[in-house]
Amino acid sequence: MHADPSLQPFFEPSSVAVIGASHRETSVGYALLKNLLFGRMDGSNRAEGFQGEVFAVNTSGGELFGQRVYRSLPEIGRDVELIVVAIPPKFIEALIEEAGQCGVKAAIIISAGFAEMGEEGRALQDRIKTAAQRKGIRLIGPNCLGVLRPSMQLNASFAAQSTQPGGVGLLSQSGALVTGVISYANRESFGLSTVISLGGKADVGDEDVLLWLANDEATRAIAIYVEAFKEPRRFFEEARAVAKVKPVVAIKGGTSDAGAAAASSHTGSLAGSRAAYAAAFAQAGILEAHTIGDFVGWSRALGSQPPAMGKRLAILTNAGGPGVLAADAADRAGMQLVELSEDTIAKLDEVLPAVWSHHNPVDVIGDATPERYRDALNILGAAPEVDGIVLIMTVQSMTEPQETAEAIACAHEDPSWRKPLCCSFIGLIGTEVGRYLDARGVPEFNMPERAVSAMNALMRRGLWTQREEASAPTHLSLPEPDDARVARAIEQANAKGQHNLDLTLAREVLEGAGLRYNRSGTAANEQEAVEIAERIGYPVVVKVISPDVLHKSDVGGVALDLVNATAVRNACSEVREKVRSHEPDARIAGFTVEEQIKGTELIVGMSRDPGFGPLLMVGIGGIFVEVYKDVAFRLLPLSRRDALDAIGEIKAQALLDGARNRPVLDRAELAEVLLRISRLVEQHPEIIELDINPLVITASGLVAIDSRVILPAIASDG
Amino acid sequence: MHADPSLQPFFEPSSVAVIGASHRETSVGYALLKNLLFGRMDGSNRAEGFQGEVFAVNTSGGELFGQRVYRSLPEIGRDVELIVVAIPPKFIEALIEEAGQCGVKAAIIISAGFAEMGEEGRALQDRIKTAAQRKGIRLIGPNCLGVLRPSMQLNASFAAQSTQPGGVGLLSQSGALVTGVISYANRESFGLSTVISLGGKADVGDEDVLLWLANDEATRAIAIYVEAFKEPRRFFEEARAVAKVKPVVAIKGGTSDAGAAAASSHTGSLAGSRAAYAAAFAQAGILEAHTIGDFVGWSRALGSQPPAMGKRLAILTNAGGPGVLAADAADRAGMQLVELSEDTIAKLDEVLPAVWSHHNPVDVIGDATPERYRDALNILGAAPEVDGIVLIMTVQSMTEPQETAEAIACAHEDPSWRKPLCCSFIGLIGTEVGRYLDARGVPEFNMPERAVSAMNALMRRGLWTQREEASAPTHLSLPEPDDARVARAIEQANAKGQHNLDLTLAREVLEGAGLRYNRSGTAANEQEAVEIAERIGYPVVVKVISPDVLHKSDVGGVALDLVNATAVRNACSEVREKVRSHEPDARIAGFTVEEQIKGTELIVGMSRDPGFGPLLMVGIGGIFVEVYKDVAFRLLPLSRRDALDAIGEIKAQALLDGARNRPVLDRAELAEVLLRISRLVEQHPEIIELDINPLVITASGLVAIDSRVILPAIASDG
Repeated sequence: MHADPSLQPFFEPSSVAVIGASHRETSVGYALLKNLLFGRMDGSNRAEGFQGEVFAVNTSGGELFGQRVYRSLPEIGRDVELIVVAIPPKFIEALIEEAGQCGVKAAIIISAGFAEMGEEGRALQDRIKTAAQRKGIRLIGPNCLGVLRPSMQLNASFAAQSTQPGGVGLLSQSGALVTGVISYANRESFGLSTVISLGGKADVGDEDVLLWLANDEATRAIAIYVEAFKEPRRFFEEARAVAKVKPVVAIKGGTSDAGAAAASSHTGSLAGSRAAYAAAFAQAGILEAHTIGDFVGWSRALGSQPPAMGKRLAILTNAGGPGVLAADAADRAGMQLVELSEDTIAKLDEVLPAVWSHHNPVDVIGDATPERYRDALNILGAAPEVDGIVLIMTVQSMTEPQETAEAIACAHEDPSWRKPLCCSFIGLIGTEVGRYLDARGVPEFNMPERAVSAMNALMRRGLWTQREEASAPTHLSLPEPDDARVARAIEQANAKGQHNLDLTLAREVLEGAGLRYNRSGTAANEQEAVEIAERIGYPVVVKVISPDVLHKSDVGGVALDLVNATAVRNACSEVREKVRSHEPDARIAGFTVEEQIKGTELIVGMSRDPGFGPLLMVGIGGIFVEVYKDVAFRLLPLSRRDALDAIGEIKAQALLDGARNRPVLDRAELAEVLLRISRLVEQHPEIIELDINPLVITASGLVAIDSRVILPAIASDG
Repeated sequence: MHADPSLQPFFEPSSVAVIGASHRETSVGYALLKNLLFGRMDGSNRAEGFQGEVFAVNTSGGELFGQRVYRSLPEIGRDVELIVVAIPPKFIEALIEEAGQCGVKAAIIISAGFAEMGEEGRALQDRIKTAAQRKGIRLIGPNCLGVLRPSMQLNASFAAQSTQPGGVGLLSQSGALVTGVISYANRESFGLSTVISLGGKADVGDEDVLLWLANDEATRAIAIYVEAFKEPRRFFEEARAVAKVKPVVAIKGGTSDAGAAAASSHTGSLAGSRAAYAAAFAQAGILEAHTIGDFVGWSRALGSQPPAMGKRLAILTNAGGPGVLAADAADRAGMQLVELSEDTIAKLDEVLPAVWSHHNPVDVIGDATPERYRDALNILGAAPEVDGIVLIMTVQSMTEPQETAEAIACAHEDPSWRKPLCCSFIGLIGTEVGRYLDARGVPEFNMPERAVSAMNALMRRGLWTQREEASAPTHLSLPEPDDARVARAIEQANAKGQHNLDLTLAREVLEGAGLRYNRSGTAANEQEAVEIAERIGYPVVVKVISPDVLHKSDVGGVALDLVNATAVRNACSEVREKVRSHEPDARIAGFTVEEQIKGTELIVGMSRDPGFGPLLMVGIGGIFVEVYKDVAFRLLPLSRRDALDAIGEIKAQALLDGARNRPVLDRAELAEVLLRISRLVEQHPEIIELDINPLVITASGLVAIDSRVILPAIASDG
């Protein structure tokens, strides 16, 4: 996981030139120069701008902001490390050639009118890229907002504002989002280490920037706005490694159909399946936000606070109502409002007035002094049962906000405890007090629920950093996989021209992969069905075998609860009749007769996402798949830990744990099943889709009852 | 629904006196006087304070802020309409007597130390209340923050700030929440009509204030923070009438166990069951917020915009990313991103550049001028397919924010369309532009998702105002209710000393109420069981009858899928054996033999909430009740419309609509069942709890299979 040193000139250049610097106040070239010289659009103090050399270049020459405007890059007569380009596309190819002679190492191409405009634009973009490669120049853009590096006072963008330096590195596919986050940063007083809008990605791509941010010491948390990655698999492989060492927060635009359509029309790329992205985020350890508020709030917290090592929250407040609402919000987020130990309560008793709440939320009462806050905070910080603290202050007539903020910041810097703290000072929104706390590294939010949500992100991050790989179970009741059997079955299916494998072959494939099925047999007629049923034992299920029927139960092709020979015989006739009445032309090849097994039904499936490839699904099966959509997704291949995490994401955990005397799921066994499916799909990329539904939890393990295996359609297939 | 005119002096007094005005800067008495004279704690301009007469009273006399401090109320020598009291409790009784002589009509008692402190305090509070009633003085408080009426520049509270007048009336059980909302109002530039913190409610209660706000013309939306109402049923009866004419938003503190514990400890009252409050809000047409952000945002929108008459949303934006995120947020909230008509698109084509998105979100491109926004907004406003508009603006180098805001405000005031509009100007947070829009009545939010959430509140409000009472179905397959049968069954149960009615009596009660059961019979032994089964027809279910078994299936007391006489006979023996092995002392009185019915299982239940009384539950039954908790609650008695709404709240609508060839629910029939339960519970208040689980959806209607009916435990009951 190494950063590419050739990116350094974008973020820490010694000199910058604006190509296309303009006098016209509404032009991008004007904005670029002003931002470089003065830091922001409404600035005028050179001391607030980039402190390296800044040059203006425009073919018309002249003077701008008291600076000479050179007519060309060579006219500067010195090497320039970074150029920021806002001239018409047709001139850029020649510019790059010239830049090669002038020592340019990096170019940010702001101009639009390339690949996004069609064939001709794409060809031009490719030529520019080739030229740049030849000259050893890296490119960001085209069609982007630019780059900001607040610690260098470098605003190489046409964003109207800049912000103070801080711990959050932002990578955004939307220039407008960049503008927005910078504005929130100024409003909420947090800092950004680096801001990058990549635009058309002719050269530098998402992965490059991600790795650069991962290696950048100033960046403590990485925030990403994405609509679609060019190479999602590659990105997430890198991201997974990055998230091991640094927190990453992402927000995906286009998770709804309407949003995806909008995203696709404005980026010209597929938004990618929501489920696949969610799986990729989960698997990589990236925290996926769904609102800009969380995106910004989580990044702030992760960029300034240590992760929480557990889910046990303490709330410290000087007012009941906001404390109650914070407790409610924490509960909704799945955090645990910790029960304070006797020891902690005794210590609090020593420093708090007698009427304090005596439980969590710790209400230190409206007249709380700075000292009272400090003492209570130090006690909660040192309490072993507390993993993180949300501190709320409301301004009442006796409150001393600034002194309280100072006391809090001091306590939080106390080296005897290192736990995360998020604050909300209600009634002090946007005042110096909030800014003071943020400057001291304590995130302060305008609403208690946002402080709680940020703390939850710190807790999720902490749990992720403690996540350990799972070891393989030693005792499994599953049969051993038999690769040859799988290969034979697929061969047979191909030979028969089967696209959707028949019951027998689908079962061959999955038994070969190491799954267990219920006992069953194939009967050509009523008599054979009865013989099989007698061998298996009652009750049994009879299902039609027909290449023309996809959803057997929808056409009456399944009969349940058959308890004796007569029932089996009658069921076969009835099934035949019902299927014929629904689909008169259906070919009926016979019946399967199966051991009837009852229990909690799971579903396991695999489909292929156009961007991500094989995607695994696991969840509650039966009719509830469609109704409650209680399923989790993971990209394949997956680790045993990923498999267990996916199982843990299913909402109906009580059902898996044997609610109402049902058999309890052996999670290790289900994880093993998922790994076997993963292996099957890796070894047989020709399987384009499969599902096992239901996979039943029984007292003696998981038993598959029905399944589908789909191979690519063959031209000759009926 | 009339307001009590005796409350008027609290909000529109001609003169106010502060009793306990103090020189001490950290005292409440100092804050009260300062707020009255100058409007806010850091004010000093008398023109910004209350413009009626303001008197200071303190036994030590002297002068304060250039005003004479009277030693007593009579010393003023003139009538005073409102007094604000911050003196020790023990002096207040005498004060009220005196106030009666001085023409006082209303008193706000800020001082604490009454009922919340125990018996003695309660007695004092009662005496003060009696004295006030005798003198015709209304009381707000004790132990409250006070009252604000911004249009009168009246700040009769010790809140540090006031705010501009506006459409939102706030009633809060938490003083800290009041401070918070005022601060948000200043920050987000919205106005408040009236702010009331009621405290200990010795006299004026929640209902009084609610009705006053309902009748107050300046109040366009009512916002309520509640932890627990004193008389929840009474409050919600009033609230239901109020919400018919004015939007009401509420946030309930203590919806989680931890939150409820905190609320209960700080208010000294039970927080009330979350389900009961949620039901009460839904039934009264009150929008329940779960975050302070939504509480404030919804109130703002409802206080300034007309409701939306449907769920069809148009998004207007000048940037892709934020438009995409807004679309995603709208989809998550269940809003419908409307497909624009050809006509609308043709009209937009005339005013927008060729590269506009050509679908919803309407992306008018980064260089959008004020005129372009205005024209697009007018077209969407006039489009019949659009119910509400969310407008997003990001600041790009060519943006003219103020001019755009003016164009938007103008378009929104165009009388040719009256649809709600919520805006988000990203990158302009907290600037004059946002304030300008708010002042023109267009709510502007810092994040697009908040504008979307506010629009959703306007849509929900619009749908509520169009809600019509449902009429009774004409054809129902349910049996007629038989009151005498119910009464007889309850009498029998009482005679037998049954607390938890046995199967037969429970069935008698519910059949008497007009519900249909599956066919069944009671057997003393194996032989009788077989006879009943033969009469009913196979398959049947056998269940144990035992007064000592509560959850029959947990002890093996139920046998399913019995298809012939042998199976029934064996099942009886097995059931007997299993129950005995689980509970050796269980008395086994025999067996019920029932027609086995399969289908989607519902649950209908009634329990009693300590505050609200009978609470109805309806949802998906079977094991999934516990796992997915897919149930809705309503207070009893309920209307047919309420019943249908509750059914509509169940998440698994697809299941009710017959997913996968299941029988389709007749909603009118289920509503009728709920109304019959409502009637049963009203007529028989001695039923403290009941549930029907499962109630099965069959092709020929709803069939109850099992039920519990609970009467109060009787002392003599075993």
